[in-house]
Parts: sequence; structure tokens; C-alpha cells
Amino acid sequence: MTVTENPRTYKYVGTRPVRHDGLDKVTGKARFAADLDMTGQLRAALVRSPHAHARIVSIDASKAEAMPGVKAVVTGADFADLDPTHPEFDMAVNLMARGEALYNGHVVAAVAAVTAAQAAAAAAAVEVDYEPLPAVLTIDEAIAKGAPIANTTNRTLFSGDAEPSNLASVNEFGRGDIEAGFEAADIIIEREFRTAAVHQGYIEPHACVADCGQDGKAVIWASSQGHFAVRSKTAAALGWSTDRIKVIPAEIGGGFGGKTTIYLEPVAVLLSQKAARPVKLVMSREEVLRATGPAPATKITAKIGATNDGEITTLQSTMYFDNGSTKGFSALTGAMSVASYKLPNLELHAIGTVTNTARSAAYRAPSAPQAAFAVETLIDELAQRLGVDPIDLRLQNAVVEGDATAMGMPHPKIGFVETLEAIKNSDHYNSPVPEGAGRGVATGFWFNIGEQSSATVNLNEDGTATVVTGSPDIGGSRASMALMAAEELGLAVDRITPIVADTESVGFTDITEGSRATFATGMAVVNACRELIEELKQRAATIKSADVERVEWVDGAAVIEGEDRLTIPEITAMAKNTGGPLTATASLNAAGAGPSFAVHVADVAVDEETGETTILRYTAAQDAGTAIHPSYVEGQIQGGSVQGIGWALNEEYIYDSNGVMENAGFLDYRMPVASDLPMIDAIIVEVPNPSHPYGVRGVGETGIVPPIPTLANAIAAATGVRMTSLPMSPPRLLAAITGGADG
Amino acid sequence: MTVTENPRTYKYVGTRPVRHDGLDKVTGKARFAADLDMTGQLRAALVRSPHAHARIVSIDASKAEAMPGVKAVVTGADFADLDPTHPEFDMAVNLMARGEALYNGHVVAAVAAVTAAQAAAAAAAVEVDYEPLPAVLTIDEAIAKGAPIANTTNRTLFSGDAEPSNLASVNEFGRGDIEAGFEAADIIIEREFRTAAVHQGYIEPHACVADCGQDGKAVIWASSQGHFAVRSKTAAALGWSTDRIKVIPAEIGGGFGGKTTIYLEPVAVLLSQKAARPVKLVMSREEVLRATGPAPATKITAKIGATNDGEITTLQSTMYFDNGSTKGFSALTGAMSVASYKLPNLELHAIGTVTNTARSAAYRAPSAPQAAFAVETLIDELAQRLGVDPIDLRLQNAVVEGDATAMGMPHPKIGFVETLEAIKNSDHYNSPVPEGAGRGVATGFWFNIGEQSSATVNLNEDGTATVVTGSPDIGGSRASMALMAAEELGLAVDRITPIVADTESVGFTDITEGSRATFATGMAVVNACRELIEELKQRAATIKSADVERVEWVDGAAVIEGEDRLTIPEITAMAKNTGGPLTATASLNAAGAGPSFAVHVADVAVDEETGETTILRYTAAQDAGTAIHPSYVEGQIQGGSVQGIGWALNEEYIYDSNGVMENAGFLDYRMPVASDLPMIDAIIVEVPNPSHPYGVRGVGETGIVPPIPTLANAIAAATGVRMTSLPMSPPRLLAAITGGADG
Repeated sequence: MTVTENPRTYKYVGTRPVRHDGLDKVTGKARFAADLDMTGQLRAALVRSPHAHARIVSIDASKAEAMPGVKAVVTGADFADLDPTHPEFDMAVNLMARGEALYNGHVVAAVAAVTAAQAAAAAAAVEVDYEPLPAVLTIDEAIAKGAPIANTTNRTLFSGDAEPSNLASVNEFGRGDIEAGFEAADIIIEREFRTAAVHQGYIEPHACVADCGQDGKAVIWASSQGHFAVRSKTAAALGWSTDRIKVIPAEIGGGFGGKTTIYLEPVAVLLSQKAARPVKLVMSREEVLRATGPAPATKITAKIGATNDGEITTLQSTMYFDNGSTKGFSALTGAMSVASYKLPNLELHAIGTVTNTARSAAYRAPSAPQAAFAVETLIDELAQRLGVDPIDLRLQNAVVEGDATAMGMPHPKIGFVETLEAIKNSDHYNSPVPEGAGRGVATGFWFNIGEQSSATVNLNEDGTATVVTGSPDIGGSRASMALMAAEELGLAVDRITPIVADTESVGFTDITEGSRATFATGMAVVNACRELIEELKQRAATIKSADVERVEWVDGAAVIEGEDRLTIPEITAMAKNTGGPLTATASLNAAGAGPSFAVHVADVAVDEETGETTILRYTAAQDAGTAIHPSYVEGQIQGGSVQGIGWALNEEYIYDSNGVMENAGFLDYRMPVASDLPMIDAIIVEVPNPSHPYGVRGVGETGIVPPIPTLANAIAAATGVRMTSLPMSPPRLLAAITGGADG
Repeated sequence: MTVTENPRTYKYVGTRPVRHDGLDKVTGKARFAADLDMTGQLRAALVRSPHAHARIVSIDASKAEAMPGVKAVVTGADFADLDPTHPEFDMAVNLMARGEALYNGHVVAAVAAVTAAQAAAAAAAVEVDYEPLPAVLTIDEAIAKGAPIANTTNRTLFSGDAEPSNLASVNEFGRGDIEAGFEAADIIIEREFRTAAVHQGYIEPHACVADCGQDGKAVIWASSQGHFAVRSKTAAALGWSTDRIKVIPAEIGGGFGGKTTIYLEPVAVLLSQKAARPVKLVMSREEVLRATGPAPATKITAKIGATNDGEITTLQSTMYFDNGSTKGFSALTGAMSVASYKLPNLELHAIGTVTNTARSAAYRAPSAPQAAFAVETLIDELAQRLGVDPIDLRLQNAVVEGDATAMGMPHPKIGFVETLEAIKNSDHYNSPVPEGAGRGVATGFWFNIGEQSSATVNLNEDGTATVVTGSPDIGGSRASMALMAAEELGLAVDRITPIVADTESVGFTDITEGSRATFATGMAVVNACRELIEELKQRAATIKSADVERVEWVDGAAVIEGEDRLTIPEITAMAKNTGGPLTATASLNAAGAGPSFAVHVADVAVDEETGETTILRYTAAQDAGTAIHPSYVEGQIQGGSVQGIGWALNEEYIYDSNGVMENAGFLDYRMPVASDLPMIDAIIVEVPNPSHPYGVRGVGETGIVPPIPTLANAIAAATGVRMTSLPMSPPRLLAAITGGADG
């Protein structure tokens, strides 16, 4: 369902063609990183620390090197010695320990051998002498007075030369007068919230193949959200210039932020260089869960005040995000989650901690779901205490164009009110809550980003087109690019081949993250098409000996003086004799990313004997600006909702007292499967982003923000128990219900 | 050695860096088409006709299909039914027979199986019922009255609806008054020349891997001189649109014109489509020699007249070129070989014939060596009869700028006189002829072509650059492209990565042939660099808040108002905040290809007991316009010379009376090896082509034109015997010497 105030109609944009990469993906033909096998290729295995924190006294690989089939061993000593102030220092240390193992699973050595079994056997034979050090495993331990230092290379961001600490970042911001805000409030609510680390849970484990030549240049096939970032990060870790590395993007089996960084590629390159053979390195699921970035665990205190009229006067919050073993994803963005409300008085502290756990990574709207859990829970309680409809309370305080964001800049044109109204007017919200169930509502926000993109559009001799970008296609962006090009050129979408090119074949393009690909790369595609249309008009003018000023581009054809018509195939057939091939390139650093707001509503039933929560109905509305391919917008809304549901109800990293993850597998790390879920009804709201030629807002992130508070609020409605700690799994919820307090 | 009148000096152009692809090639890491192996890949084998000409009554593949591992069989019935007037009809029929097998080795079916051995066994089990038809094997048989028709689909080019004939093409052109020319002559010489078919002899046999998806789209990895042509020809043979096919260029192990057409790709695609698996198809050397295009056999009569003062008054020639089984490479271009002399009166007949032999293909300056054999032999005889120096006679009649070519258009600026003088002034020509040896001189000409090219230049974030073209690198063009980009940008050549991109990642680019890549693709690279420099200047102006009109580009840096300097890395480091990535694309249909002239001199000794010719010394001078990378220009001169030497002295297709090639292997088809050859001294003459920014003339073709007459003239000088039939192999030369006539 789409709720639109989009005044324009399009011929291709907004339609739902089968994605260009669809058949290859459903038939298993699409090649993901682990699907590539090269002649002469070796397999690699990693040696990982069994300690959460330990000094590496020595590594003796002599036995391993003598084992059958072993061709190369690398350790931290083989890597570039980066200065700790280098922006990629932490990434580089994370992928190969130098001197200290910082978490259980930290890589300390790698082995390449002819077979995977030989590599695994040799990895087990690498002798590492560790001196165990005290480990810090939680936020509370990290910030405790006199706590051991989890990572001695860590310095807080605001004082580069400070003593080592367990603080990775400290940000404070706000506005107005907090005390005055609380004094003006009739109701004040304060709570502490905790969330466990959770994983992105992408289906495809990290994998790559690296092939290093004797000229010191390497080709890497890898699955990632951004192969230009794989190039620059690999170059940084190795101390190489970028032109020594070519990265070819494999298909990606999910990333959700977790594939914006790298773990394997520099290791595979060095092994390949030592062995003079291609090297394939593939993680197991256990390795993915133990040693790739989860979303940070959090501890958040939040205090909100409102008048009896429903005006929120103030918000004060201190948010701790645990980065894991090194500086990871900034806590800052989580704090932005509060930007949905006017909040005249605001004080936020966003603090990152360092512990001896796996380094955290971005996860879909990174840090916002945890913050929204706190704020949207308090607003739900406010509505409950005030006896007003939770959507009406939010409508009363909702930001509109010109209102300040958490950081102070004014909001551009946004569709928060329209999205709240879409849920308020929905069949779901207007249907009675099922007997015994509870209904919850919450909202989410993501600011979205623009960043750099390049695109090339080439016309073939028969008038078909190729659209070349550098944005890995995670959620259907090939189809989106083709649709925008089709609309611009007036060429049927199935005559357009959208491809994702390697780092040498297309201009620099930033990572597919922050919900930027369809927005920013789409703009580059549109710009290249417009340049191409100017050239097509010029060619038509040449062919017809007409003045180019009298040529218009109408529905896929040059129309000369309103009469004579030349279609794209007619022009390309003459290209050779009118100036050569038709091709255009555009690059940009896209400004004007449109924030996207989501509002979710859920009805849940809680089994008071088992603590199990069943979601009876779930509806998610989100402002997409303009949905280029509505099916994939709905897919993003549904996918984000499902990931948020998993985070809310079941997912968590469980560490033992030695910092060993106890549930590093999909049997024990419990992600939702289809049978756990109702159909997620997706409502697309279209409030076009005026900064994009088709009004696009990024849609990938926002959907994961509301589910946690939506379900917490629904559970509160169903049980009367306010859950402030995640996950709200059956045993924890049961404990809370029976104990009368949050488990 | 370089003889130059090039007034400009360059920083990078004209230097000799190690080629960017060099280490990969010498270490065996570079991947040629047969080096690719895909997961699940099948191997294919071809069923070839044992008859030179036969009707295919029926094909029964049932036994083959039932054999172990067999996954697919295709025959002519599986291919698109092209109209005989379709420009790719003959190519398509050549790669898979339809109804009639037209030569021994013509493919009639193909089989894909799990292993190569299974495919070969199944191919042998395909039962083909043939009805033998009369075969035509030579030019004489083809043009004999009442000759059988070699290929009933053949119609001569000048009458599309004519009756079938054995004439593939008939062209006549000339100027002046032939009879008056002969009347004005004091000396008239007339001879008949014959040359056998010879093969390009590239090291790498044809190979490809095709992977067809259930969406009806195919990816092809192939070694070729032009992957865009592989795409269009495969599309034509299959009746597909080009956007269903992506061709990824493998490295190419030699082509010399022989890889400007295709033999395997559509067969592999159809097998892959039927089997739903990738299919690899690799020719054996025997298959390459039996069934891929040789240079045509010829029969040429030529009659020349000159005054006693040395003025050539007239030339009359009839040149038959045997196309083999279908229309092949035009005979027309051979006739252009006469364009080196003023020739006021001229009459040329260039006729292509059709026979039941392998379809001919382009071979380095296609058809010119055979024609030069005739014309340059007659001119040598003229000099001998006139008692003048053979170079002086040529200088007297040499064309200069403004003189008419064979086709009548005026020559642009050319360096024929300079090249003749380079040899005349050479140490070789001024050294005495060794005792008992003979010295020969001859010249060669190739007009060169421009055609369509595209190029993209991308700057990386660290200021390194990628130069993307669609021209397969056969003779070092990656290095040439990088050198021109280095010169334009002022960036060190080793900071530039030149790549050859696939058909979806770069704009349309014609085949690497006709000595066009460095010329035309180089111009596209230069144009893209110049566009990029404008953008770099704009960015520098933005960074320094300066007027862009006051920014100059000097030696790799933007110089603002003659003072402030920003290098490329400094500008790219700021790219994000000044407009995004820096990238530029250019496409063109290049006009102004500069003709290239070559003059060769050889000293030979002939063993009168065995007829063996030993080349004692060989010097080749050629006008390169400007040598972008002199080592590769020298390599082209030397390589062309060596191929011409092989053609002159030993190479020939030997057919038995049934049209079976009797020497289809490198043991029996005798190409020169290093021990057969002296060092070829290369003299680069530089008369810049005014139509190219660096003065480039194509250099690939011309070098093969002079060797045949150079050696024939040297043998005549050594032995007194004028050889008019190729090859001048020991038995033939011995017969001529002992018999007193051409063997």
C-alpha cells in the first residue's frame, strides 16, 4: 500500500519489474565470494585467540610450516606498522593482533595450504605462547573505577595523547535549559535500559579470494558493501597505495552494515603474496558470530518531562555504547534518534566504551534502535500516564520542516507527520485490539547520507544501454538504477543492463550504507543520463541537419522541430558516423539526503506461563520520499522490521565469565524465522525529497528503529510489565511478569 | 635506433617503462581464455566434417547424448536462421554448418560433457550421414569454366541476386591511360606470382568459457582482438540482442588479425544454455590450423612499365585472393599496396574466390604482403634492368603528401621518403654485401585505420589514476595508453593503471586491428585526460577560492596565478568536499589515421646444394609517426619482419587431393624460430601524424609487408633466380636453381 502526496507520475519509476539479477539469484547462478575458485588456489585458515585478553609472548609456526600442503603463514609481524593515530589503525589491529589478543577469537596468525583441511590442521599446529591479562567484558566493568585497561592502544577521541582508558568516545550536546525543562514538566519519567550485543546475521559469511602477483599488485574478489572501501582499507592495513589493489565485487548475501569494514582481505593478500598463489579465505558461521562486529551492547539512562497538556519539555539521557575491543561504530548516531521530537530542552551524553569483546560494527541505522528503545518507551509511558493516544501525543510533538535536529541543524522537508497519520488511518490501528493482546506503537528516524558516487551510462550499437555503478546491490539497487535510467532516457527497463563494476572500471563510489545508494548513486545515474540525452539530441541534429536548439527529448526519442522523430536505436545505429560511441559519466558528492521516518504498530499476545510473545499483527509505515521500485521498498521495510523483532525478542550475545561467546551458531543465537513472524504489512508513505530528481529518501535503515519499543510497548500493554532490558525472551519476560519487575 | 624529425620532446612519451602487464605475463599469472575454470564447468568438443564438401543428410546424436557425462549437443539446427544477405551470415555459417559442410574441418555439431575426454568421445559418437559433393580447392579450379560451385549460398558482392558462383568479390579501379602508359615505357616487365595460404600462427589457440543463465543472458570469457565484436558477432549468430551478452576479455596470446572474427563463442553459449552449466571450449593446434582463417592464397599477374630515366609510367595487375569457403577478407586492401608510387596510369583488378578450404581471415596488413611481393619484385627487376640503386629508383617514384593513393584520395603527411632515406643512410646499406651473398630491398605500406574507441580515466583518492579502455592489449597498448595519460596529466606512468574493461564497463570500442589502438584509443584517452584536467583546474580553483581562468595545468599540478601549486594527490584528497570523485569519459570515431611506410633490407646466402636460405643481416625501418613506447614499436617492426620471413621462406598450407590439410601442426607447418633468424635491426622513423595529439601512426601492420619481396630480391641477387612462387623453401628454391626457373 502506498500513501502518496507525490504530484508527478512516471512511466517506469514506481513500477515493479523483476530485478535484473533476480533469475541468477534464485537459480543459484549468481556468484558470491565463496563461489569463486581459481586455478592453483590455496585455502586459508585463521588462528584465533582462546583468551579474551592476553599478551602474545611468541608465535612458533615452524611445525605448521612443515605440515603437508602448507604454503604460507602470516602473523601480525607481517603487517604494516601503522601509527595508532592512523584512521584505520583499529581496523587493522582487529584483523590481525599485534602483541596483544584483545578478545576471544581475535586473529593472531593465518595459514594457507593446498586444501582447507590442511590449512585447518596447520592452524591448529601454530604454537602461540600467551600471557593472560585481566579482561573487561561489560560496560559496567569498563567504566568501573580502577578497571583494568581492555586495550592499551585506546585513547579517547577528544584527547589523542591522554592516558589509556576504556572510553572510546565521549560526546555531549544539547540545547535549552534542562533544569528549567524539568521544572516546567508535570510528569517526569526516568528509567535505565540495557541491550545486549546482537549480530547483523547476514546469510553469507565473510569470504574473499586474493591473488597477488610478483609485481606487488593484488586482485581481490570479495563480498562487501563497498569494494572501494575494501580497497582503501586493505591498502591501509598493508601500507600499500590504492593502485596496487583491484577489488572485484562478488554478489553480497546480506551486510546490514556488517560488511562496511573488512576482516579477511589483507590477510588473504599477504598469504597470496608469500605463497605466490591465489588464496581463498572463508569464515565459518561460528567465526562470523565470535569475531565480526556485532551491534554494540548498551546501557542507557533517560529522563523525560512533559506538561499535562502533552508538551514534552525536556529530555536528558546518558547513553553508553560498547564498542568492543577497539574504537568501533560511534555512539553519536544513536543519540540522533531523539530528533523526531521538538524537545526545547535537551541534554545528551553519548559514550563509547572499550571491552575485551569482538569489535562492534555498523548495523542498520547503527545505534538508533537502542536509543529509540529508551526514548520511545518513555513517550509511551507518558501517553499512558496522560491518557492520550500515543500517536496523538507524538503528532503533538513531532518535528516538521525547520525544526531542529538533535545536532541543531534544521530539518529539511520531512514526512514524519504524514507517516504518523498513515498509521493512525490504517486498518490495523482502527481495528480493535484482539482479546488478551496488547498494542504498541513506536517511531523511528534515520537521517540518511549522501556521500560520493559515480555512474557511467553506455549505449550499445543496437540502442540498448548499460548503467555502470560502483554501489554493491544489496537490496535491489540494480533495478532502481535501471528504473531511473529508463525514466530519464525513455528506454524500456528491460533494455537496460545495470551492473556493479570493479574498482578499476568505474569512478570512486562510497560504501552502500546509510541508505545512500538509490539516493546518491541514483543521482549520478540521472546526471549521466541527462548528459547522454544532450549528446543524443546533438547526434539527432547532426543526422537531420537541424539546429540542436530545436531538438527535444520526448519519451525515448529526439523530436526535431516537433515533427521528425529519431529513437535511441536509430541514433545509435548512426553513432559511428556522427561522432562515435555514446557514453557519459557523472560523479558527485550528493547533498540533500532526505531523512526517513517510520511508525510501527504491533499487536502481541504473551503466554504468561512460558513468557513467549506472539506477534498477532504488525504494520510498518515509512516515508520513502518516492519509491523507485515499491517491492524493494516494501522489502526494506519488512526486512528492517524483522531484524528489529529478532533484536527485541530473542537475539543476544551470551558470554561466559572468560569472555567466550556461548551461543556462536544459529541454533543457539536465535534469529527469527518465517514461522516466528506474521506478515509485515508495509505502508509506503511518499513525501518526495526535494533534493533528489525523483524525490528519493533512503529507506534501508529506518525500518529497524521502531520494532524494539513497538514490541516493548505492546508487551507493556498486554502484561502491564515495562521491559527495559533486551532481549524480551521468554525466560526474561517470564521472570519480569512473575517477579513484577524487568528480568 | 630512432630517426626523428619530431620537434617536440616529452617527459613520458618516448620512454620505455616496463609494461604494466609485464610481470604477470612473464610469471604465467596472466589469465588467457583457457586458464579460466568455473565451478560446475563442462568441457566441449566439436564434430568436424571429414569431407571438403558434402551435403549433411542427417545428424544422429542419440548415441552421443546417452554417453557418460554428456549434458548437451548442438547442431546447425539450434542456431538462428540468418538471411544470406545478413552481414554476419558467412561468419555464422562458418562456425556451424547448415545443411552443407564447406571444407574439411567445418564444424557440424558440438558436444558438452563433464570432462574433456567424455566430450571428445561423445563427439566421435555423433553420427553424421554425408553425401560428398565435388570440391573446389584452388583459385585455378574456382575460376575454371564449368567449375563446380564450392558454396551455393555465395553470390558475388556486386550482384546480390546473381546465380551462385565461385567469385566472392570483384573490384576494379585505376586511373590514367594504361595503354598510353605502356607506350611511353622503355622497359616493360610482366610476371605471374603465386602464394600459398599461411596462418597467423598465434601462440594461443582459440578458447572461451560461456555461462548462460536462465534469464537468457550469457557471460563469455574469450581471447579476442575485440570483445565488443565478439559480443555483436555472437549476438548475430544467435539472433540475440547485444544486451543479452557480456564479454569479458581474457589476455590474448597473439591474434595478428586472426582473432578479429569468432569460431567458438556462439557454440559455447548454446551448449551452456542447453546444459545450464558453464561450458569451456578450447581448440587444439590442429583445429586452429585446419579450421581457422589463414591468409588467402593468391595468384597475381602484374605488368609494369618505366622509362629509361626511371619514371614508372604504368602498372596493370590482376590479383586473385582465395577467400576459402565463404566470403572472407576482402581482396581490395591488397591492391592498395601499390599506393607507394606515383603511378600516373594504373589498372587493378582485385578478385576474391570461393573454394572448399578454411575460410580466410585477416592477417596483419591483410592481403598487402602478397600484392607487395608482386609489385616490389617488378620494381627490383626494373632497377636491375636500369642499373640504378633500388632505393634511388623508389625515391624517384615515391609518393609524398598530396599524391594519390591507389583509391585516388590524396596522401596526408607521410614519411615514405624519410624511411627510404633511413635505410639508404643505414650502416647496413652502406656496408658491403658479404661474399657470396645477395642483398635485397623492398618497401611496404599500410594505410591504417581509426574507427571507434572509448576511454574512461578515473582518479583514485590517493591521486593514482586508472585508464579504462576497451582495446585488448596485444602489443603493449596498456603501456602506450598509460604513457599518453602520464604525459597529459603529468603523473608518473607507474602511478597509472591501464586496464582493458569488459563490454559492460566501458564504452563501445572497435576491434584492435588495422593498427588503430594506440592511435584511436589513445586519442580517446588523451581527450578524457584533457576533460579531467579542466575538472582538476576547477577543483583547484575551488580549493584556493581562485578564478578558474587563472589556473594553469603544469607538470601534474594546478598552478594558480603562477604561484600556488596543487598536485593531483592534493586535489584528489579534497575531492569529496569539492564535488565528488574525479572521472572523465571520451568516445570518438577517430579520423586522420596516418599511413605508415616500411623499408627493409636483407643480406642472404643460399646454399646451392640444399636450397636453404640463411638471412645474414636484416634491417627494417618504419615510420611510426611518434613512438609512444619505442620498445614496443621495435617489437612490432621485428615481429612483422619475422612473420613475413616465415611466409617468404617456409610457411604454406599443404592440402591433399581431398582438401585435407596435410601439415596441421607446428612440426610440419614450419614457422621460423629464434635459431632461424638473425637479430632484426629496427629503425624507427618519426614523421609525426598531424592528426594525432602525439603524432602517432599505427605501426602493427606495415612490418609484415616488405619481407617477402625483400627476401625474393635478395635471393635473386644471390642466385640470379627470380622466385615468383611462395614459399621459397629449400626444395622449391633448389628446384628453381637447378631447373633455372621458379620451382
